[in-house]
Amino acid sequence: MTQSDFLARSIELAAASAASGGGPFGAVIVKDGQVLAEASNQVTSSCDPTAHAEVAAIRLACERLGDHQLTGCTLYSSCEPCPMCLGAIYWARLDAVYFAATREQAAAAGFDDSLIYREVAQPLSQRQIPFHHLELTESNRPFHEWSLNVDKLAY
Amino acid sequence: MTQSDFLARSIELAAASAASGGGPFGAVIVKDGQVLAEASNQVTSSCDPTAHAEVAAIRLACERLGDHQLTGCTLYSSCEPCPMCLGAIYWARLDAVYFAATREQAAAAGFDDSLIYREVAQPLSQRQIPFHHLELTESNRPFHEWSLNVDKLAY
Repeated sequence: MTQSDFLARSIELAAASAASGGGPFGAVIVKDGQVLAEASNQVTSSCDPTAHAEVAAIRLACERLGDHQLTGCTLYSSCEPCPMCLGAIYWARLDAVYFAATREQAAAAGFDDSLIYREVAQPLSQRQIPFHHLELTESNRPFHEWSLNVDKLAY
Repeated sequence: MTQSDFLARSIELAAASAASGGGPFGAVIVKDGQVLAEASNQVTSSCDPTAHAEVAAIRLACERLGDHQLTGCTLYSSCEPCPMCLGAIYWARLDAVYFAATREQAAAAGFDDSLIYREVAQPLSQRQIPFHHLELTESNRPFHEWSLNVDKLAY
């Protein structure tokens, strides 16, 4: 199967999801030329705002590998990943991403990922959801505990 | 309980997680002055790179409310949310966020959220993980199916 074939499969998943009332997004994760995981958007069906197709596929692929990283894997998504999914892609350390529809097409369909792309770059005080930094004397204690723990699994 | 008290609780969760070998991050979600959900980082323990404390707390809070949105809720996080968690916060439509440690403190402890903040703003071709846009004739079909489905639950 080619890159276009895997991407077409993600679109099939997205279209099937939309036809059944789910979010119109699908994703496929491929390792060594084989499909390791596929998912469609499950936000409303699972009451989970983080269950975008990409995140759901990453979770499933990690579960199947028994690992919290996906080095050597490629993600195919029916649509350009939003900033949440982009972050998940970096934390999962995927090798590459292919997508079909753009964030502008998503926005035209009512999914305003562009807003979040703009908000990420805003100073805290100018965001639509206010982010407040409170100085607490204990704020660095978790990192200190982490540095002391010789049994930790760094990631 | 005050905002500082809820934030101190998130730090307690983070420190306890770090002491037991988990990621040094904690989060608390509050609704109507009561703790609705709390979580610590579960990335390595659950083989899930998306299981940051904020995402885990959002998922738990949504599960408890039976809703995919958290309007009326406030998130307290031991550390400034990364772009993945920021995206999750927007999709969940939380009212506000309070955090203790900054992204710079996280970076000093080895958690380079700053990299992902920079990458979000990069053009596709200049990212460390390559993002490829492939034009497929079917790319808008999921959005078309979505527009036709009168039973969908918009979000």
